[in-house]
Amino acid sequence: MSVQMEIICVGNELLIGKTLNTNALWMAKRATSLGIVVKRITVVGDYVDEIAAATVEALQRKPRFIITTGGLGPTFDDKTLEGIAKALNRKLEVNEDALKMVREKYEAFAKEGRIEEVELTPPRVKMATLPEKAKPLLNPTGTAPGVMIEVDETFLMALAGVPSEMEAIFEDSIVPLLKKAGGNVMFFETSIFADNMMESTLAPLIDQTMHDSAYVYIKSHPKGEENMPHIELHFSTTAKDSKSAKDRLGKAIIQLSELIEKSGGKVTVQQKSQIRQ
Amino acid sequence: MSVQMEIICVGNELLIGKTLNTNALWMAKRATSLGIVVKRITVVGDYVDEIAAATVEALQRKPRFIITTGGLGPTFDDKTLEGIAKALNRKLEVNEDALKMVREKYEAFAKEGRIEEVELTPPRVKMATLPEKAKPLLNPTGTAPGVMIEVDETFLMALAGVPSEMEAIFEDSIVPLLKKAGGNVMFFETSIFADNMMESTLAPLIDQTMHDSAYVYIKSHPKGEENMPHIELHFSTTAKDSKSAKDRLGKAIIQLSELIEKSGGKVTVQQKSQIRQ
Repeated sequence: MSVQMEIICVGNELLIGKTLNTNALWMAKRATSLGIVVKRITVVGDYVDEIAAATVEALQRKPRFIITTGGLGPTFDDKTLEGIAKALNRKLEVNEDALKMVREKYEAFAKEGRIEEVELTPPRVKMATLPEKAKPLLNPTGTAPGVMIEVDETFLMALAGVPSEMEAIFEDSIVPLLKKAGGNVMFFETSIFADNMMESTLAPLIDQTMHDSAYVYIKSHPKGEENMPHIELHFSTTAKDSKSAKDRLGKAIIQLSELIEKSGGKVTVQQKSQIRQ
Repeated sequence: MSVQMEIICVGNELLIGKTLNTNALWMAKRATSLGIVVKRITVVGDYVDEIAAATVEALQRKPRFIITTGGLGPTFDDKTLEGIAKALNRKLEVNEDALKMVREKYEAFAKEGRIEEVELTPPRVKMATLPEKAKPLLNPTGTAPGVMIEVDETFLMALAGVPSEMEAIFEDSIVPLLKKAGGNVMFFETSIFADNMMESTLAPLIDQTMHDSAYVYIKSHPKGEENMPHIELHFSTTAKDSKSAKDRLGKAIIQLSELIEKSGGKVTVQQKSQIRQ
């Protein structure tokens, strides 16, 4: 039974097409590499009701992990924690551990001469105002702490939206949990490329190879123009060790390559075609 | 009342962190520029049940438009139409108009000598197998037609996942509908940059400016490192004409710049700071 994750990205900038969602890519890739199955990514705007609805819906699907990113900062439109509190029907309260983290940040800024006063103004206290029974997660590179809340069997975690902060909190506080949950399963992948063959001609060859290769998933991605087909064939599998993964993927690659060449196609293997974890 | 859109992206490659979701960015940007409000982006894998669930949930929120992308091709894991059919409780059937579009494509390929036979094999017929009462949308640059289905007040449209095909179908078949639905409202945006000031100090200044500027939305995006704050301030508004938008945004930019400089910050205006539609 796979360990599942959902990602919720909060931010109007993602919905107006201003910002490319590189955070979702990064988290999905990192979690997948640890054997976690990302089932859904949801993007909502900076609205309490939207965030609450997305959180409630994700919780109902009972993934082991729900990770939100964005909306933890000091401005009026940083509403993720308010949304989560609403979803869980919990009050927001100043969390003393979080307040200590925030205070220490501003004290350090003052020492460096970057700010004149360390006063914990309302926008600063806001970053330490968490849903009841939440645990703050240290933000090594920014001010707003991450937040962890256990809800039944789900770890619900809220991370900052600034990529460097999101990645740092993820590595420090989430990766250890993912490793523990994912067991020792790892994700392996590689790609080869087929030319001179249309995707509709490839389709039955892929079917046949997947039928013969247990645990190997093959997906075709057309990369060329319509009148010059160039198709990436992406092979992936999860395994406990690199040898089983390589044996399994290697066998499937050989079979599909032979089928393609028999049907008049051309297979190319690029540097990218190394099997990687 | 705003005209709302949801986007559903289908593809395991998005959930394993293989592919950056540039399709969502492109569609969100294009729709926003036409005055449409994108409320949610959902990413699910190549599974009938996941696609059906995301479609049912989006329909329940009653946006005017739901656009899916990905999963229309000839391979076994192109399951979007099966998912939509399940969501709507409709049968899948070979659509004669769609079959004609697909046949003409393969006839053209044969003429160009790219394929030897124009036979409509099952993977090819699959691309013309649509939910009942669906209308195919011409794919100017690829083979799989897009699909349009009207469900109560919602236009549900399925587009190919290959970016050039998605964009071409969107421009040809969807933009005219969006223009009609959006009225003459357009989206305008611009950014300025604040240095030497932390986001928590900026927060109340943004609040004050937004309070004084009807219809202007301001969002801060930290871009620098923690010990060297560099914050983008993104201003946006929707308006019927460029003059109102520019007046409104200009006034807000002047007010916020003055507040920032009064508080010891530095405002910079870059080329990017032109107000654009």
